[in-house]
Amino acid sequence: MGDVSAQTRDRIESDRFCERMGIDLLALEAGHAEMALTIDESLLNFHGTPHGGAIYSLADAAFAAASNARGETAVALETNMSYLEAVETGERLTATAEETHDGGRTAQYEVAVTNDDGDLIATFRGRVYRP
Amino acid sequence: MGDVSAQTRDRIESDRFCERMGIDLLALEAGHAEMALTIDESLLNFHGTPHGGAIYSLADAAFAAASNARGETAVALETNMSYLEAVETGERLTATAEETHDGGRTAQYEVAVTNDDGDLIATFRGRVYRP
Amino acid sequence: MGDVSAQTRDRIESDRFCERMGIDLLALEAGHAEMALTIDESLLNFHGTPHGGAIYSLADAAFAAASNARGETAVALETNMSYLEAVETGERLTATAEETHDGGRTAQYEVAVTNDDGDLIATFRGRVYRP
Amino acid sequence: MGDVSAQTRDRIESDRFCERMGIDLLALEAGHAEMALTIDESLLNFHGTPHGGAIYSLADAAFAAASNARGETAVALETNMSYLEAVETGERLTATAEETHDGGRTAQYEVAVTNDDGDLIATFRGRVYRP
Repeated sequence: MGDVSAQTRDRIESDRFCERMGIDLLALEAGHAEMALTIDESLLNFHGTPHGGAIYSLADAAFAAASNARGETAVALETNMSYLEAVETGERLTATAEETHDGGRTAQYEVAVTNDDGDLIATFRGRVYRP
Repeated sequence: MGDVSAQTRDRIESDRFCERMGIDLLALEAGHAEMALTIDESLLNFHGTPHGGAIYSLADAAFAAASNARGETAVALETNMSYLEAVETGERLTATAEETHDGGRTAQYEVAVTNDDGDLIATFRGRVYRP
Repeated sequence: MGDVSAQTRDRIESDRFCERMGIDLLALEAGHAEMALTIDESLLNFHGTPHGGAIYSLADAAFAAASNARGETAVALETNMSYLEAVETGERLTATAEETHDGGRTAQYEVAVTNDDGDLIATFRGRVYRP
Repeated sequence: MGDVSAQTRDRIESDRFCERMGIDLLALEAGHAEMALTIDESLLNFHGTPHGGAIYSLADAAFAAASNARGETAVALETNMSYLEAVETGERLTATAEETHDGGRTAQYEVAVTNDDGDLIATFRGRVYRP
């Protein structure tokens, strides 16, 4: 963990896609980030449940913030997502990303998506490359 | 492959998240779907490149359409995504989902995301469960 | 967590592939298992480093033990593996599998592979189906 | 596709783990490899079915051969495996690896594992880094 420069924080907070999606940054440290998204009706799929892309986007946003928080550019190579529990409309989901390995050229992050009751909704793992 | 009922097609076309994201359905058969998304500035991340969540959402939408096209409900269990090539603002991406295995209770789909030049931008694989 | 019946323990310990590979069961509880493997020269690939299949087999064995420890059959659907650090010949690797979600029909396990110094060598995640 | 130097072919054929496991190289070109493994009783798990580690090892061996066939070293970063169909003892499995993307520093391979009837048993995808 560690501090994040004001410049890097401003940059990470200026994400247009997160703004469009309504994804909010809750916490940011080096290698750590928390993001939140409230599931409204515009995020539902044709089953009437939250679209997998919406939940993934929340997890991926936390992954991107955590992996770029030191100011050095990191780009996603590979990610995987496990969908574990159903989500109701109106729930607020939080994604918490942690750095689980720093190998220099690559690094690994795990993201847990939980609801307000603390239930684990989805698990995400991603690997970045630092060019 | 095979026909899709009008009712199922209407249902799949009524996806609110796809409407919000600007994801268009191009083709739909049993076990097959094609979706497209134009990368505009609202889909960019803090690097100024398309957000991983946007590209994933396109792939996931094609996966959901292909796996539900027979009218039987299929829910995503596990997915994985490989980010392969950079994308420019203004490019139109197409995701093509194919059923690669039908095991009854579960089925597998592979999705290729390509740009207008036919370059492979990302690869996605997903497994669904049929409750 | 919880106890494992003598019958289930005997069954899990009778794994022929683990015997052939030299994978030892160190600990077994419901939803938890630890396995170990010493990397000898017969496990090296053509680079002279441990074969990815050997390290995966260790992780997968811990996943199988943890997910079957309650006596109910669980079969692997999807797994993923991240290779993080190099391993030297002679090192003894330990795989620790934990149940991270129990959804009834499916369950999720995460496995950490570490060496004797506690370095994280590889990370594995798997999803099982209970028929 | 393309030719493989005699030196590289000899190197890839000298894999000790493949020898120990009984994995045979059937075909090798630049970006392409085929490997085979007969499922005997020593590869069974405690369910009496082929161990996931054995099937993965076959797929991973084809991935390693295909990704190193040009003579340049490639190391595995991330892999994922889908287990699709059951396998009987005595069946001979073939893994066919194809390069699906060459991005310079990284490359992607897909591996299909089939039985003698041509049924798709498992699907594998892997990403390598070229140091």
